[in-house]
Amino acid sequence: MTSIAIVGAGVSGLHLALFLQQHDVPVTIYTDKTADEIAGGRLLNTVAHHHHTLERERVMGVHHWEADRYGYICHQHSIVGTPEPMRFRGDFDHPSSIIDYRLYLPRLLSDYQERGGTVVIGAVDAAAVERIGGDHDLVVVAAGRGAGGMFARLPEKCPYDKPQRRLSAGIYHGIAYTEPKGVGVHMSLGHGELLELPITSREGFATALLFENIPGGDLELLADICYQDDPGAYDHTVLAKLRQHYPMCFERVDPGSFGLMGPTDLLQGALTPVVRQDYIRLDCGTFALAMGDAHCVVDPVNGQGANSASYSAWVIGHAILDDLALDEHFCRRVAREREAFVCGVSDWTNMILNPEPHVVGLLMAMAQSKALCDAYTQNFNHPDRQWDAVATPQRTAAFIARHTADHALAAV
Amino acid sequence: MTSIAIVGAGVSGLHLALFLQQHDVPVTIYTDKTADEIAGGRLLNTVAHHHHTLERERVMGVHHWEADRYGYICHQHSIVGTPEPMRFRGDFDHPSSIIDYRLYLPRLLSDYQERGGTVVIGAVDAAAVERIGGDHDLVVVAAGRGAGGMFARLPEKCPYDKPQRRLSAGIYHGIAYTEPKGVGVHMSLGHGELLELPITSREGFATALLFENIPGGDLELLADICYQDDPGAYDHTVLAKLRQHYPMCFERVDPGSFGLMGPTDLLQGALTPVVRQDYIRLDCGTFALAMGDAHCVVDPVNGQGANSASYSAWVIGHAILDDLALDEHFCRRVAREREAFVCGVSDWTNMILNPEPHVVGLLMAMAQSKALCDAYTQNFNHPDRQWDAVATPQRTAAFIARHTADHALAAV
Repeated sequence: MTSIAIVGAGVSGLHLALFLQQHDVPVTIYTDKTADEIAGGRLLNTVAHHHHTLERERVMGVHHWEADRYGYICHQHSIVGTPEPMRFRGDFDHPSSIIDYRLYLPRLLSDYQERGGTVVIGAVDAAAVERIGGDHDLVVVAAGRGAGGMFARLPEKCPYDKPQRRLSAGIYHGIAYTEPKGVGVHMSLGHGELLELPITSREGFATALLFENIPGGDLELLADICYQDDPGAYDHTVLAKLRQHYPMCFERVDPGSFGLMGPTDLLQGALTPVVRQDYIRLDCGTFALAMGDAHCVVDPVNGQGANSASYSAWVIGHAILDDLALDEHFCRRVAREREAFVCGVSDWTNMILNPEPHVVGLLMAMAQSKALCDAYTQNFNHPDRQWDAVATPQRTAAFIARHTADHALAAV
Repeated sequence: MTSIAIVGAGVSGLHLALFLQQHDVPVTIYTDKTADEIAGGRLLNTVAHHHHTLERERVMGVHHWEADRYGYICHQHSIVGTPEPMRFRGDFDHPSSIIDYRLYLPRLLSDYQERGGTVVIGAVDAAAVERIGGDHDLVVVAAGRGAGGMFARLPEKCPYDKPQRRLSAGIYHGIAYTEPKGVGVHMSLGHGELLELPITSREGFATALLFENIPGGDLELLADICYQDDPGAYDHTVLAKLRQHYPMCFERVDPGSFGLMGPTDLLQGALTPVVRQDYIRLDCGTFALAMGDAHCVVDPVNGQGANSASYSAWVIGHAILDDLALDEHFCRRVAREREAFVCGVSDWTNMILNPEPHVVGLLMAMAQSKALCDAYTQNFNHPDRQWDAVATPQRTAAFIARHTADHALAAV
C-alpha cells in the first residue's frame, strides 16, 4: 500500500493529510512544532480562505467556522493620493473567511489525530526529507522555511530578487466592521496598501491590519517599530498612520479602545516572492513534490497564499488516488494540473505589487462600475482567471469591456 | 467581434467551425478541396470515432449515424505467432463508430454551410496562412499536408525519424462481422497488425482492413501491390495473406464475394509520427495555432488521430469562448489544456509500434483477464490514462493489479 509523507503541518499539509486519510491512503505528517506551540505562539499570518478552499473544508468535514457566521462578503476599496479620494465595493458570490491560524491549524491537526492520523515531531530540513524519503513512496514537502531550498528557484517566474513591501500584520481591538462586512482594501499611493481583515481570533471577532509598506515610503516604519518597548507608543503611531494614510479605515476606529490585542499578535518582516521547481528526486530514489510555501511564496497583498497551497494539496491528493505510480510522470502531471492556478496567483500578485498602467486603469474603472468590481472580486476565487484578465493591456481592456457591457445590459 | 480562420476542413476543422458557429463566433473555413472532390475521391482513412468524439457530435447536432445502429462495442483481439494462437475480447462502456470520411466530411461541411457558414476554396500552404492571418484575429491551422511544416517539429516528442509501418487501408466486401460487432485487432508477430473495421461506406456496411505492415516482414508487399494493374490478383494476394497471417479474420471471409469495393477504396503508404510546436506568431502579428495533423501525426494503429484532433478542436473552441484575447497567453493555455490528451495519444501510439516487454506482458495479461482487457479497451476513450498505464513497467504492473484485483473482487 502506498505510503505518503507530508513534511510540514500548515494549511496545505493538513488539507492533503485529511484528504488522504479520508480515502484510506496511509499518510504521516512530519512537523517541527506541536499543536500547543502553534496555538501559543506568534501570529502566523492573516490570510483569507476563499470559497474554493472553504468547499474543500466542507468535503473534509473540517469547516468548523461556518462562513455565513464567521465570513465576509465583499471588498471595501479606498484609495487616497488621487485628486479625489475614492471608495468603491466589490461583492463575492460566496463568503470568504479569516480564522487566526493559531486556532485553525491546531484544530485541523486535532481532527487528523482524532481520526487516527500519525504526527512525527522533529526537524524538517533537507536532511530530514532525505531520511523520510527512505520510508515512504512519496514525500510532499510543505515546509517552506525548513526544506523549500531543496527545490531550485525558477528565474523565469521570479521577477523580484528582493521584497517589494515591508510588512506589519497585527490583530487589533477597536475597529468597527464595515457594513456589509468585508475586507478593507485601502491604498495610499506611493506608500503602500492596508488590508483591514475581519478575523476570528482567540478573543472572538477582531480586526487584523496588514500594512503593506513600500520601502522608502512614509509607512515603512510600521515594519520596524517595537511593540514591547512601548505598547502605548506603538498603538499611538499606528493610529496616527491610519488617520493620515487610511482615513476610510480610521473613520471606524474607536481611539479609546484601539490597540494591538497582545504582544504575540504582531508579525513584522518582509519576503521575496519565489516560484520553485515542482519536484526533485531524492537520493533514495523517492520523489519529493514541493507544495505550498516550499513551491511558491507570494506577497500577502492579495491574500492568496493559503488558497493556492490548499488547491495544490487537492490536485496532489486526487492525483495520488487516481494515478498508478508516484514517479516522475506523476510529478509532471501534478505540475501541469496546478500550473495555471498556482502561477496565476503568483503572476497576478507580482503584477499588483508594481502595477503596470493598465492595472491602475482597471482599478479606476472598477471605481466606476460595480459589475466590473464584482467580477474582479469574484476572481479572488479564480486567480487563474484574474491573471488572464491583467496579464496584458489588451486583456484588461477586454475584461473591462466584457463586464461593463454585462452591466449595461443588466441595466437595460 | 473576434474572427477566426480555420485552414483545413478535416474533422478538427469542421468540429471547431461548427462549435464556433453554434456560439455565434464569426468563423471562416479555408480549404483546398470541395465537398464533391472529397466525396468522389480516394479513401482518406479508416478512423474510428470514440465515445468522447461522438458526444461532441451530439452537442453540435451532427451525429447523423446513430452509434447504436452504426457503431460497434468491443475489440476482438487475436494473436498468431505465439506458441498457441490467442483470442480475447475487450468491451467498451459506450459504442464507437467508423464512417467513411467521404460521407462524413461532406455531410458536416454541408451542415456548416446550411447553418450559414463561409467556405473559401483555395491553396492552404504557408503563404496562404500568412495572408489569411491578416484578415482574422486567430488562424487555426488544421491542414497537415499544406501548412503543417510552418510549425517546428519537437524532437523530444518524436522518437522516430521514419515510418514504423507500411500501410494498406482498403474497404472490402465479403467479411462477416464478429458477434458482438467489434473491431478486430489482429497481430501477426514479427509481421504487423491488421485492424478489421466495421465501416459505414457509400454502399452501406462493409469492412475496412487496415494492414499495418512491419518493414521487411512478409506483409510489406501489401503496401505496394497495385490494384488497378490486376484487381483479381490483388484480391487473391490479400486473401492469401489473410489466411496465413490473420486466420481469425479469415475465418469470417466468404472467398467467393471477397474483394476490394472499388479502385478508389484503397490507400497505401506510410507516415512518420511527429509532434509539432503548438503555435507560431505570423509576420502580421496574428497567432496561428496548430491543430489535428498540423500539430500531431500518429500512426493509425490505435485509431486515435481523429479523436485527438476533435478533442483539440474542443479545447480551442472553449478557450476562444472563455478567454479575453487571442494572444500568446491564449496559445499557451491551449497547449497546456490539450497536452495530456494529445501527447498521451502520441506517446501511447509510438510505444505500441515497438512495444517494450512490459507492454507485451500487458497484452498477455489481457488475454487472461477480461476485466483488464475491458479497462484497456475503455481507455481508447481516455488516451491520457492509457499512456499513464503503459509509460513504464511499474505503471503497467499497477494497472494490471488494479484491474485484475477489481475482477477478483467482482467475482466474490
